[in-house]
Amino acid sequence: MDILHKVAMKSSTAEVYEALTTAKGIAGWWTTDASGDGDELGGVLRFGFADVKVVDLTPGTRVRWEVVAGPDEWVGTRVNFDVNQVDDYAVVMFKHEGWREPGEMMHHCSTKWATFLLSLKSLIETGKGTPAPDDVRIDNWN
Amino acid sequence: MDILHKVAMKSSTAEVYEALTTAKGIAGWWTTDASGDGDELGGVLRFGFADVKVVDLTPGTRVRWEVVAGPDEWVGTRVNFDVNQVDDYAVVMFKHEGWREPGEMMHHCSTKWATFLLSLKSLIETGKGTPAPDDVRIDNWN
Repeated sequence: MDILHKVAMKSSTAEVYEALTTAKGIAGWWTTDASGDGDELGGVLRFGFADVKVVDLTPGTRVRWEVVAGPDEWVGTRVNFDVNQVDDYAVVMFKHEGWREPGEMMHHCSTKWATFLLSLKSLIETGKGTPAPDDVRIDNWN
Repeated sequence: MDILHKVAMKSSTAEVYEALTTAKGIAGWWTTDASGDGDELGGVLRFGFADVKVVDLTPGTRVRWEVVAGPDEWVGTRVNFDVNQVDDYAVVMFKHEGWREPGEMMHHCSTKWATFLLSLKSLIETGKGTPAPDDVRIDNWN
């Protein structure tokens, strides 16, 4: 069971790739609580609520993480970003794969990922995203 | 293969149910091009790009549509809204189920549904949503 999303942003794939592979970049759209190494295979990124290991990396094109610590529902799942240039747009195909059950957490995270990917789009196109803790509120708790 | 989302809004379930079962309500958050009967079993709602038939309905709690006309990828799929009261919030669990392949259209629609469900939340909480054609742009074409 996978969470899928697609977001296109007026940009080069190189710029998007940097926002996906550096703690500074990620801090601009997902969570300001980001540290670690995202630009080398085997590197670990830490986000406070979860740690991910970089398990696949193709410069400008592909980023794949495996969740190695965090919520039970997340550990062992993989987060994939595939980036392709289409005319003036960098098109991000997103997949958070390997969920074990389609419970409330998966429903919640699907919507939340959409807001973070739109935050990435905003960061890239306007210079300003909405990373946590100032992220878009979607639920009765987050 | 299913698209899942969860959005909570400060409201009663009755108010959300009305926004899901009347053309006027749907025009406030999904598309202004909405007509037809959404509040009776077997009723058909028309949205310009797709028609859906109401195949399950539990007042205040559950709405289920089957897509009977529209894009190839949509026809035969089902769109489910389950609404539950949790304290001051109406919590909407959403599922668009029965996709035949996890292609670009499914990725796109997953993100787009998130924006429309947040439009529903905005309509309910502030009186103003962002239905098409003034919907949130997420892609290089929509």
